[in-house]
This record gives sequence, C-alpha cells and structure tokens, in this order.
Amino acid sequence: MLVTKHQNTIDNAVKANQERVFFAQYPEHPKAYGEEAPVKGTERYQQMLHQPFKQLLQTGETGWAGEETSPYTREKLGITYPIFSVEDLTKKAAIAGKDWAEVPVATRAAILIETLEKVKDHFFAIAHATMHTTGQSYMMSFQASGPHANDRALEAIAMGYQELQRFPSELMWEKPMGKISIKLKKTFRAIPKGTGLVIGCSTFPVWNSLPGIYADLITGNPVIVKPHPQAVLPIAIVVGAIQQVLQENGVDPNLCQLAADSTGQLITKDLCEHPAIRLIDYTGGSAFGNYVEGLPGKTVFTEKAGVNSVILDSVKDLDAVTQNLAFSVSLYSGQMCTAPQNFFIPEQGITTPSGIVPFNEVVQKLKDAVVSLTTNPKMGAGTLGAVQNDTTLNRAREIHNLGGKVILEGTAVSNEEFGNARVCAPAILEVSSADTHIYEKELFGPVILLIKTKDTAHAIQLARQMAQQHGAITCAAYTTSETTKTQIAAAMNSVFTPVSFNLTGFIWVNQHAAFSDFHVTGGNPAGNASFTNQEFIVKRFVWVGNRELAE
Amino acid sequence: MLVTKHQNTIDNAVKANQERVFFAQYPEHPKAYGEEAPVKGTERYQQMLHQPFKQLLQTGETGWAGEETSPYTREKLGITYPIFSVEDLTKKAAIAGKDWAEVPVATRAAILIETLEKVKDHFFAIAHATMHTTGQSYMMSFQASGPHANDRALEAIAMGYQELQRFPSELMWEKPMGKISIKLKKTFRAIPKGTGLVIGCSTFPVWNSLPGIYADLITGNPVIVKPHPQAVLPIAIVVGAIQQVLQENGVDPNLCQLAADSTGQLITKDLCEHPAIRLIDYTGGSAFGNYVEGLPGKTVFTEKAGVNSVILDSVKDLDAVTQNLAFSVSLYSGQMCTAPQNFFIPEQGITTPSGIVPFNEVVQKLKDAVVSLTTNPKMGAGTLGAVQNDTTLNRAREIHNLGGKVILEGTAVSNEEFGNARVCAPAILEVSSADTHIYEKELFGPVILLIKTKDTAHAIQLARQMAQQHGAITCAAYTTSETTKTQIAAAMNSVFTPVSFNLTGFIWVNQHAAFSDFHVTGGNPAGNASFTNQEFIVKRFVWVGNRELAE
Repeated sequence: MLVTKHQNTIDNAVKANQERVFFAQYPEHPKAYGEEAPVKGTERYQQMLHQPFKQLLQTGETGWAGEETSPYTREKLGITYPIFSVEDLTKKAAIAGKDWAEVPVATRAAILIETLEKVKDHFFAIAHATMHTTGQSYMMSFQASGPHANDRALEAIAMGYQELQRFPSELMWEKPMGKISIKLKKTFRAIPKGTGLVIGCSTFPVWNSLPGIYADLITGNPVIVKPHPQAVLPIAIVVGAIQQVLQENGVDPNLCQLAADSTGQLITKDLCEHPAIRLIDYTGGSAFGNYVEGLPGKTVFTEKAGVNSVILDSVKDLDAVTQNLAFSVSLYSGQMCTAPQNFFIPEQGITTPSGIVPFNEVVQKLKDAVVSLTTNPKMGAGTLGAVQNDTTLNRAREIHNLGGKVILEGTAVSNEEFGNARVCAPAILEVSSADTHIYEKELFGPVILLIKTKDTAHAIQLARQMAQQHGAITCAAYTTSETTKTQIAAAMNSVFTPVSFNLTGFIWVNQHAAFSDFHVTGGNPAGNASFTNQEFIVKRFVWVGNRELAE
Repeated sequence: MLVTKHQNTIDNAVKANQERVFFAQYPEHPKAYGEEAPVKGTERYQQMLHQPFKQLLQTGETGWAGEETSPYTREKLGITYPIFSVEDLTKKAAIAGKDWAEVPVATRAAILIETLEKVKDHFFAIAHATMHTTGQSYMMSFQASGPHANDRALEAIAMGYQELQRFPSELMWEKPMGKISIKLKKTFRAIPKGTGLVIGCSTFPVWNSLPGIYADLITGNPVIVKPHPQAVLPIAIVVGAIQQVLQENGVDPNLCQLAADSTGQLITKDLCEHPAIRLIDYTGGSAFGNYVEGLPGKTVFTEKAGVNSVILDSVKDLDAVTQNLAFSVSLYSGQMCTAPQNFFIPEQGITTPSGIVPFNEVVQKLKDAVVSLTTNPKMGAGTLGAVQNDTTLNRAREIHNLGGKVILEGTAVSNEEFGNARVCAPAILEVSSADTHIYEKELFGPVILLIKTKDTAHAIQLARQMAQQHGAITCAAYTTSETTKTQIAAAMNSVFTPVSFNLTGFIWVNQHAAFSDFHVTGGNPAGNASFTNQEFIVKRFVWVGNRELAE
C-alpha cells in the first residue's frame, strides 16, 4: 500500500528535518529525471498554450479567464482557467475536508507524497510554465518550481507527520488516591482548524505556495489555491496533478482547489474575509500582507517585503567576494526575496590580506563583477532571466530619479533565444548613510544600493535598524575578524535575521535549502511565518483531549 | 551544580509531557510537606498582614498601594505593594533579559526548577493568601496555588526545555556537487521574542499565571507580572521567591518583576501597549481579552470566558451522576473556568437501567444533590469556599431576574469559622431551549441553568453552537450509548471543546491535570492558548540560523 511504499521517504524526511544536514528527495539535476523527460515537458507545455486548461477535476465553473504574458516572448500564453464562485469553492472545500480530517496521518502523508511523485512527472512542463510566467531562467524554473519546491513540500509533510503524532492517541491515566486510584481513559485528537487559503505571487508561484498547501493538507485541512493572475499555469499543473492522485486514492479532489481569477475581478479579499476560511498563507507585497495579518479570527502565515543587507568589513579574496555578490544580485534579476539590496561599505574601505582596498575601488570592483557577469555571453542572460513585469523593469531603469550617484544604469541585456525578452542588468546606486529615505524600502528587482558608512559598527547598526523596521530575510556578511562576526550575528539575530558569512564560490546568500535552512524567520516585518518550523504546522490544528471514567 | 541536581526532575517532566500519563512532581496532599509546614505558613501569612510587602528585590518604587479584602472576613488585608512606573519596569526587564537570553537552556531550566523549590517552601502562606483574596477554600487554595500550579509551571519549563533543544545548535551541512562539495557550518539559535507581560485574574492568581511566567522565562524572555488589584498577595509571594533564587544564582532579579497597581490607577493598558512588551498572557473577561488579542505586533495568549455544557443522555446510576455534578457546580461556588453551567436535559427524561427518569425528576435530583451537599455541615462550606466579589454574588442572588423558572434560589450558607464570609450555594434556573439569550453567556459564579431540549441530538446541537459562538473550556457528557458518545465527541471536538464522559466518584470535569490534560484548547472563543501545548512555547521565540562557508 501507499503507506508502506512511502514509509522510507517520510522517515528520511523526518530525520532530515530534525538533523538539518543536507538532504534532497528530489535531485536538482535535470539529468536525474531521464533523457526524455525534458523533451516531453517541452511538448506538454506547448500543447497547453492557447487552450482552456483542462487538467483540473473541478466542475461548476462560472466562466473562463486567463491573462498570462511571457516575460520572454512578451506574448500572451492564451491559456484560460475555469473561474469559480467563492461560495462554491468554500462549500466544496468544507465537504472534502470533512472526510479528510478522518484519514489517519500516516495515510495522509503517503497520499500526499504520492501527489509529489505525480508532480515530479510534470517537472519539465512546470519549468516552461514557470519560465514564461515569472521570467525565471529555464534552469531556475526547473529547480525552484520542481525539485526544490517538492522538497519544501515534503519538509512540511514530514513536520506535520511528526507533530500530529507527538502525543499518544489513547492512554490510561491512573491517579493514585491512597488506597484507591482514579482511572481515566484519555484520547487525544489533532483537530484541523478549517479551510486554508494559499495566495501565490507572480515570481515564485510554486515554491512559495507548496509549503502552505502541504502544511494545510497534512494537518487535515482542505485548501484553496489562489494564484497571481499573471502566474497561474505552474501551480495549475501542480493542483491538477494533486487532484488526480487524490481521486485515484478515493479522496475528493476538491480537497485542493484552484481559485484562478483575473486582474479585472480579483477574488482574494472575498476569499480572505469569507468566514469558512480559517487559515491563510500569503506571499506578496507588504500592504496586502499587513491587511491579511490584521484579519480577526484567522490564522495567518505571511512572507512580505524586506530589505536584505550585505555588510562588507574584511575579506580574504575581494575578487571572489565581488564575483559571488554579483551573481547573488543578478540571479533572476534580483527578483528573489532573498536577494541582497543594501550593501554597507565603510568609507575607509575594506581590509584584505594585501592591505586596505579603498571605498571607491570596492565600488568599482562590484560594478566590474556585475558587468562582467551580465555581459558574459555564456552566463549573462541565463543568470538574469527576465523581469516579470514593467513596474519592476522601470524601477531599475529609472534609478537616477532616486537620488544618490548612479554607478551603473540598469541596462538591457540581449537574450539570444528570446529577442523580445524583458531583460535588465542590475542598476547600481551609491548613496550616503544619511539617505535613509532611499534605502529603507524594498526596491524589488535589479537594483542595488551601495551605502557608505563611517565604519563597520555603523554598518551593523544600520543593517540592524533596517531589518527591525522594514524586515529582512537574509543578511550576507564578510569579515575575517571573529569579534566582528560575533557582533554582526548578535545584532542581526536580535532582529530575527539570519546571517550568511563569507560565502564565495558556488553557494549564494539567496539559496535556502529545504530540510536545513528556515526560510524567513517570522520574527521581523518581512513575514510572520517560517518554512518549516513547528509553528508553521502546529497553528493549523488544535489538540483536543477527551476523557472517560474507566471502570 | 543546579543542572545536575534537577536533571532527573526535568527528564521526568519531559517524559510525562510526552506520555501524558499521571505525573506530579509536587504532591497535592498537605501532609507531604511535613507537620510543621502548615503552622509556619499560617504564621508567615499573619505576619504579612497590615504591612508593606517587603519580599521583593525590586527598587525604585514611586509609591505603595494595596486594596485586598478577604471574602471570608470581609476585612482589608492591609498589605501594600510597591508601585513602579511602566517605563521603569520595561527598562529593567530589557536589561535583565539581555543576559538571560545568553544562559543555556539547561541552566535556565535548572534555575527555574530551583525557584519552584523555593516557592514550595511558601505553599502554606500562599494558601492563606489565596484563600483570603480569591475566596477559595483552604484546601483548594493550597492545592491550586501550590502543588498544582507548580506542576503546571514545571510542565511549561519541560516543554520549553524540549522545544529549545529540538534542533542541533551547530552542524556541518555538506552538499555534494559532482566532484566537489559545498560545506557550510550552520548554527541554530532560539532567539527570545522580548519582554513578556502576564496579566492575572482575581480567582486563580497563581495557577493561571505560572504557565505564562515560566513559559516566558524558559524561552529566555524577561517577564512582568501584573496581578489583579484584588489578588496580589499570592503571586507576590511567588515572585518574591523567584527573585530570591535568581539573585542567589547570579541572575538579575528584575528578570521577573511584580507590577502591582490599584483600581484607581490601573496600568494594564499602558503595559500592553508599550512597544517593549512583545508577549502577553492574559486571564480574565472576554472584553479585555479581545482587546489584548487585537493588539498589533504582539504575541498573545488568552483565557477568557466560556459557557461549559453538560449533556445528559443516559446513565448507569443517576444518583452517582447528580452527586458528581452537584460537587462540580458547587466547588468554589462555580468560580472555576472549568465549572459546568448549561445542563442540557431531554424533555422525555434520562435513560437509566431501571427505566426512564422523567425530566422533572432529573431536575429534582440535581436540586436535591446540590442542597444536600451545600447544607452538609462537614462538606458544604468547605466545598463552596467564598464568592470573590459582590458582582458574582449578586448574579446568583438575582437569578429570578433572568427569566425562566427558579428551581433553587442562590441562598447563603453559613461558614462556622468565618461568620462574615460571602457564601452562596448555587442558584438553579430551568429554562427552555428557546431562551438562548439567557444561556448564551457566561454567568460566572454559582449559577446553573437546566435547559430542556427536544432530545439528545438537540442538546448536542445547542452545546456545540454555544461552544462555537461563545467558547467552552469543558463539556461533561453522560451516555451509555457508544453511538451517542461518538456523536457528542465529534460535535464538541469539531468546535475544539474536550469532552469528559461519565465521570462519577472522586473525579470531576473541573479538574485539569498538569502533564496530561491540555487546559483550554485555544480553538474557540474561550481562549486562544492552551496549557501547555507546543504553540504555547514556540510562539515565544524565533529560530534563526546562521551559515558560514567552511574551508
């Protein structure tokens, strides 16, 4: 049976969650999936274009809508999705949830892992879908929406599997009372809170949605998946695969429903405020995120905006550092929530083994590294991907309007395969530490700010202040001093921001590995939740204990 | 050292939390504490009367105030407590918290258990203090504010001890990358959220406050304890003992501060809204509780009001059942948050082995059981204790104003030892199931409502509806049918209310045992928190992981 089939996987995932050493159930190398898989994925993707999306098992749609445009071709995908009323979605979720709540957790886990196995069959179609909605490169699309997302889903399943079995389901409680004793038969049940809503974003429609979807499902809740109207296809394929496996295993496919909508007729607020919705997972801008967090009586998990810092103090090899950072800021054109934005550089420069490198030289080296990478014919376009939308593009194109000193304009980079692609290399602006109004907000996309500070202590103070007031998901720091390292860690950790020290080579601050790195801490304004700590799971159900006098 | 001294205790407590079988670190029998302890406790209590309270190590008070009145003697205790400004309290908490956050969790746990051992030395003085502020009987005062409260504190310490050590503090993460591998040294730290505030109530000033106090402390947070102005002494003695042990162990005693205030100048809202306060534990009425829950940016744990139900369907021995229920409603005059209020009885009566007992006869038997218990010279006064305040007393005295049919007036019962005591036996009102306006609110104190329902299904429906809309902490159900039992459990559990089935003899629905019963589920309007599930602990700190490239 499924439980036996996937027992090893769930056991490994539980162990990995606990030990937090490297673990991946789904390899990130495309070759691991066979030679034919990429070809088939391309075909499947192309077959979906200019068609109504028919892979869902939902019925009763009120109409069809779709408005996705590829950031590469700048053409409409022409795919339409069924539209459902909020009442219909919530009613069907409640019905499906009722039976699911009674399914034992080991069976739930096995069925959910089986859905991930089915999603795996679609990895390459999802890669194309992600590429042509988000603008991620093909390789990033494959990894982020494929194996990495599946691993984060498995991580949530495993955390749920463990937490839901934390207490005995039945036990005898015996209280000695002198010569007699009182015996109670006690049972403990983890009762699901109710229907979940997972609100997706336009840049990571799968990776950011799967943890919430699977956290809801493993804890016994039905889930409604509301994608961004500009990035529906990747998650629609996933939901279709989930529904198929659910049905094959005798589970109502409405347990996981897609709730597509259109920019002209958004249903997000209606869903959020519907009394049947008890759990909300949200990824996106801070304004809407704060609205969701403020909704009374809902359990809410958010990832919002933040300003990520780089603190440059002292380095062993400045070239290795600037190359690493150039890649971090260029990767997917800075459209990762983990991408660095604010570089704090002391005015007296950076200490290196061969002496101090002055401020202006550090700036020049950073600029050179970015230019060198993004204009590299083999690396540039693939690293940058495409910019998801014009708002983000314009932000980078118009940095001269922000004030400060433009070090590098946000310039177009040509993509050989897609001549129309919306591509922009990172714009670099040098600002003074007094220009708080410029660097205290997230400038989402390919924009980096080089902030001149008095010294490293000043840099730490500003980075800490930014994280505390405006949120931060990552901080990269470079120092060869153990004392400074301790100071940076203490300062940033005190505002619930993790620090990555001295990364060079093939590892970047942007990367958060499933089963090991908590993604977002949940402790500062960048978001109130974390993939996947206990809180991400235990807030989705309630322990209820019944007692009965035993004769 | 302390860690070694208490290792066995913490290990046992962790194990008990997990297994949820009977466990008590602090015996509930007064005799377990030696023959002299009660006498000394009485002396200590009497020495504290009519004096400024001098057992705190806090300095810098702006004045002294105290207004406690004994529900037994109706006289002022005459004790005054130092008053501190909100700024002073929060500043000192922050300073004390800084060092405490660096103390390893095993050391924190050991020091905190040592504080419980010191509190144990004061159990009998605390018993008198509790009795003469809350109105609890001497025995309940001893048990609830002594061993039972200490056990719940230990439960919170143990849950924290386990959760804080859930992930490795340091590990090497190695990602294979073909011929090379990437190695990162990772560290995980549980960062405390910030200063906690624990707001106490007038009926259970110790039992309801200790879980929040110790949950804050074990997770590395400083805590400010704000008692109800009418019930300061019991928790003041506890805070004094905690401060003494902290100081003896080189910890700033301001880690746990008492923030007494007066009815004329309450500081609760000022404290709640102070930016330094990050965590709030609240016990009390729903109106203020909802205000606290709505405060933005605070992590809040509440226990508010609820309406607890009894569902009577079928019984083996009606006399045993009515006796058990009479005790439950009379114990501390119904002033326990777990006391039953709404009795749902089918109009056709209750099934027993000797046939159906008609509705009116069930009502008569309940009335008789209450009268028999409360007028029993050996049992009555001791079970009832005293009513904490006049508002509660008047509610019982004036039930005829509510509507319905008065079955038993709330009558005075004489207390031999304290002629002035505010004592009132439970008032019983029979109402129709249509009288929702009467039974849909908590009628705190010695008031019970007998609600005539069409049948048991109707009773279940109403009990469920009350719990969902108005909250419930307990539900007692009596049925000999397995089918009905399953129906009741499913219905009440679906609104996050635990059910106790068929309790008779020396066990009552009011009792929630530490290490086994979750107190309040956190899932319905009766409160958003639960003693002590994982959520009660993990929301008080944030996991932050740092990474460093390993050479």
